Amino acid sequence: MAPTPNVKEATGNQSSWNTLLPDFPKGPLSKYRKKASFNWKEMAVFLDGEDIIRLKNRIFSALESDPFFAHHPGEELSREKYQELTFLRCKRLFEYDFLTQQEIIENPLKILNMVICIGMYDWSPCLQFFLHCGVFGGTILSASKRFADFAKKIYNMEIFGCFALTELSHGTNTKGIRTTATFDHNTQEFIINSPDFEAAKFWVGNMGKHATHAVVYAQLYTPDGQCQGLHSFIVQIRDTKTLLPMPGVMVGDIGKKIGQNGLDNGFAMFHNVRIPKESILNITGDVSPEGKYSSSFKDVKERFSAALGSLSTGRILITAVSATNLKLALSIAIRFSATRHQFGPTDEEEIPVIEYQTQQWRLLPYLAAAYALDYFSKSLFENFVEFYAGLLTKQRSQRQADLGREIHALSAASKPLSSWTAQQAAQECREACGGHGYLAMNRLGEIRNDNDPNCTYEGDNNVLLQQTSNYLMKEFFLSLLMSLKNPLPLPQYFPYRWVLCVGVGWRVFFFRYIVALFRLAISYEVAKCVSFLFKQLKDDAVALVDVFAPPDFILNSPIGKASGELYKNMWAEILQGNKVLNRPSWWAEFCINKPHLVHFLNPKKLRNQLCCSRTELKTASPTKCSRRKNHITSVEIYP
Amino acid sequence: MAPTPNVKEATGNQSSWNTLLPDFPKGPLSKYRKKASFNWKEMAVFLDGEDIIRLKNRIFSALESDPFFAHHPGEELSREKYQELTFLRCKRLFEYDFLTQQEIIENPLKILNMVICIGMYDWSPCLQFFLHCGVFGGTILSASKRFADFAKKIYNMEIFGCFALTELSHGTNTKGIRTTATFDHNTQEFIINSPDFEAAKFWVGNMGKHATHAVVYAQLYTPDGQCQGLHSFIVQIRDTKTLLPMPGVMVGDIGKKIGQNGLDNGFAMFHNVRIPKESILNITGDVSPEGKYSSSFKDVKERFSAALGSLSTGRILITAVSATNLKLALSIAIRFSATRHQFGPTDEEEIPVIEYQTQQWRLLPYLAAAYALDYFSKSLFENFVEFYAGLLTKQRSQRQADLGREIHALSAASKPLSSWTAQQAAQECREACGGHGYLAMNRLGEIRNDNDPNCTYEGDNNVLLQQTSNYLMKEFFLSLLMSLKNPLPLPQYFPYRWVLCVGVGWRVFFFRYIVALFRLAISYEVAKCVSFLFKQLKDDAVALVDVFAPPDFILNSPIGKASGELYKNMWAEILQGNKVLNRPSWWAEFCINKPHLVHFLNPKKLRNQLCCSRTELKTASPTKCSRRKNHITSVEIYP
Repeated sequence: MAPTPNVKEATGNQSSWNTLLPDFPKGPLSKYRKKASFNWKEMAVFLDGEDIIRLKNRIFSALESDPFFAHHPGEELSREKYQELTFLRCKRLFEYDFLTQQEIIENPLKILNMVICIGMYDWSPCLQFFLHCGVFGGTILSASKRFADFAKKIYNMEIFGCFALTELSHGTNTKGIRTTATFDHNTQEFIINSPDFEAAKFWVGNMGKHATHAVVYAQLYTPDGQCQGLHSFIVQIRDTKTLLPMPGVMVGDIGKKIGQNGLDNGFAMFHNVRIPKESILNITGDVSPEGKYSSSFKDVKERFSAALGSLSTGRILITAVSATNLKLALSIAIRFSATRHQFGPTDEEEIPVIEYQTQQWRLLPYLAAAYALDYFSKSLFENFVEFYAGLLTKQRSQRQADLGREIHALSAASKPLSSWTAQQAAQECREACGGHGYLAMNRLGEIRNDNDPNCTYEGDNNVLLQQTSNYLMKEFFLSLLMSLKNPLPLPQYFPYRWVLCVGVGWRVFFFRYIVALFRLAISYEVAKCVSFLFKQLKDDAVALVDVFAPPDFILNSPIGKASGELYKNMWAEILQGNKVLNRPSWWAEFCINKPHLVHFLNPKKLRNQLCCSRTELKTASPTKCSRRKNHITSVEIYP
Repeated sequence: MAPTPNVKEATGNQSSWNTLLPDFPKGPLSKYRKKASFNWKEMAVFLDGEDIIRLKNRIFSALESDPFFAHHPGEELSREKYQELTFLRCKRLFEYDFLTQQEIIENPLKILNMVICIGMYDWSPCLQFFLHCGVFGGTILSASKRFADFAKKIYNMEIFGCFALTELSHGTNTKGIRTTATFDHNTQEFIINSPDFEAAKFWVGNMGKHATHAVVYAQLYTPDGQCQGLHSFIVQIRDTKTLLPMPGVMVGDIGKKIGQNGLDNGFAMFHNVRIPKESILNITGDVSPEGKYSSSFKDVKERFSAALGSLSTGRILITAVSATNLKLALSIAIRFSATRHQFGPTDEEEIPVIEYQTQQWRLLPYLAAAYALDYFSKSLFENFVEFYAGLLTKQRSQRQADLGREIHALSAASKPLSSWTAQQAAQECREACGGHGYLAMNRLGEIRNDNDPNCTYEGDNNVLLQQTSNYLMKEFFLSLLMSLKNPLPLPQYFPYRWVLCVGVGWRVFFFRYIVALFRLAISYEVAKCVSFLFKQLKDDAVALVDVFAPPDFILNSPIGKASGELYKNMWAEILQGNKVLNRPSWWAEFCINKPHLVHFLNPKKLRNQLCCSRTELKTASPTKCSRRKNHITSVEIYP
């Protein structure tokens, strides 16, 4: 693990920490803050460094000061208005230009921290920005230089992009994609076509309303009638001046989702849309003017993997996004648990619910997971940056190849781990906050609903885990074969992290597992140990959350505010609600056209009938008992 | 368990089944329907009986024919409009008057089936109806005859009621409730008062917009200054002619929730509101005109339990409600899994995803749970009806007392089991349907979000399980003490069901448990058995779901329709969406005020910097490395 911080140096910086990380307001949470066994500011500086904290502060305060990012408590946003606001917010992110090129080069982790800070506010504008700049832009940057001019248009928003891989009837099995790109050597064009609506591009983020261009995956057909497999093409789908669809393109919004409703997911059907030959993203293969196919990859499978390389980017980001959701949910639930009093040693004196073992078992394992996943996701991202820089500069070293393979495998394992942990944690946090956790304003529902698709997109969790198993089995057998030559054959570039981080992650799962075992009352002894650990940890829980919780404006949850004044905060927000104290506008409906009297039960008759049935059944006289025929199970009911 | 059905009798009824249960349309699901090892109609009649099926058909077709219950695909309902529609629908339920008194007396299970049928359409109007008639009405009916006239007003909707127990700062610990009812013997009135906003009644269903009367729980103070503990009172909160709040009552809506947004949950503060002496619901105690307190319960704890008796009703209903949600989610996910093709033996031939072991492991244990919980919840309800009839007719037998205690314990255990199973299943079903499960139109989000509060209200699941453990421990020690006198001392009236049903339920959990064990690759042998069972069950899965799935109109999920034409159904509904193919109304925002060019990365610089950092770190020269100070963990990152 990381070395222990230099305490002397740390103490020397105490005053600068106070500028960077202001004290929390005094209030109901102060009690636990005093109990903490460590200084939360020291921990924050230790984990992130002052430079990253300064960046976070810059982003958070920019959003808080910007009217476009203002909250509107009690106001209800229609999906359409939310999509509009999301787009305007996304546009603002371009304008803010939070990081200089020099900053990114000096510490690439800043990109990830920027994405996370925006996402903590709301994932919709964050994903819209990332899908355009990162996924769409990244795919185009990694193609040949032919797209250099095009790339510029991406970053000043002349065009707006999306990544169109999945179709209505094909998601996980990308090989089964049915959109075609047929090369016409007479006109030097590709003809993009959707054979039917089941092959419509579907679920594509940014495509519903905004994208002017799409990276479209299609089966490439050369003039000899040969299918050359999946390739990607840049297709213009909307006019850049009017946002009206291009001829032959039917494009629209797929409708309301469980969450992330600011983002416009869309569909598109192509009716023999002609695009210039230069539109092929020649990452894996290209076509000559005569229609001859060529590829730098000899192996078909390898070429297929390369074609889908961009998916790793997504998985690495999702690992971090999910870890962020985990932190948000815990910030709310732990602060709530430390301030919500219920029951106590006497009827008069109630204690905070975090003092109860059940509450500790429910939340503290996830707190451990949050720290483990946070560390892991950042380290994975740094490795990815190195790999990506190598990709852009056309590195062909063994290290570059191994990095690619291992990042692919590691992200395929960490994405399910992280997204499922966050999903379960969000549900547990919701329940741990009782009814108040179910109020939309407290944000646990939004966190759970927005995190949910992380379990599905960029590779379904269950499928990814199977892939990872395959990879590990392969590596294992390979290592057996090579064991005479190489003393340390398993993942070469992440030996420690592989063991430590994935190990820590799985240990968290095992931890949950142990709790589950206890609940089933199987293993009392293990549980006794766990309880003991929890007792030590629960006094640190608030401070551990203070380290990663964003400012109140960003966290946007009355029960999760740093003051801990949960009831005052909730009450204030409820009274800001729209027409909260008004009678309903449809009040007259209550007063007119009263329904006729509904029959209501005569309890004596009911009881007589029930007793009679029981007697009948007891004497086992089926002919007398009218109920038995209709309701066989009643034989059981009245034994 | 229930006896095997009389096959001869069953066969004779084949033609009547076809009228009751029409065949499903031919389509992609036919293949699996043909494979089933049993006749789904026979199973449906066996489980419910023709009479109940007739009732279900009556309710389902009434809702489908009623414009108030029409679906509006693609239309977005504001929360306010949804609340209005819910109230209008609830009112229609009074008018429909689906059951006669005679029908209810002959088979009380019909009440439960009615509630479930309406809930399958939407829980909001169903709960509004049930909170008024069942919880509010039931509480008043079980008080003395003094309320007979009042009760009539409930059932013809002259008044509208709610059940106000929990407060902003007190939910689970009901003893801690702080609203007071002080008896003033000069005026023969009770003065209802909320000491502060933390003691505002909170989360009360129907209180937000509609209720005119509330059953208010308050600490009763007699003129001698003594607190006599928690008692309930009828308090008018809104005028029945205008729905305006009564003087001294501040009442409003608590705002948006994660789900069930048709239902108006509310809050209320009472500022010394005077109500007549007769308003006390004298179930547990009463006050004489002079202000003397009297109670039929000598034990304070017993009195407290009796005062909260109505909560059992809620828990029994929630057990059934959750089982219903489980069935809805499975109907969607299993039909989807049998029609969604992905991968296959060759690239050309794809197979339904239900053929994959992973998909079977994910869904089939829940299918088993659905059958077990359905049977259990109905039998529990029948016992409750007997107990309730006894309560209304003032039975004081030992059987009545034991029934009460055991129903209390059993419902406290079954409510968590059922609601958690449904909650986890809804999430698993969402994920098992991939991206399409995340589309709101397919309803898995609504099912999960509406089921969620079942884990919390009428007793938090975790707290209830602790109570059940206490009960079981007590019974266990009691049985030890009495073992000489009584050979069968454990739960007396449900010996079989206790073992069978709760046993079956827990077995389902163990089943899941086994699957989890497999996933952790600990127990290969057990998993091999389970896989074998699944292989047999997967061909019956569609038919098992056909037995309990409601008609398409009620299920309201394109991917869950009986035809199995999932893509046609989805595509049709998407194109009905509002402005689905239009450009966004804010299109001009894309075209004007383009942001300035964002810096984008120079890959070569980035790579050089990264390589340099690695070299610096390798040579362990901290002074040269600018990154180390700010980012300690980078020591790990580049080993």
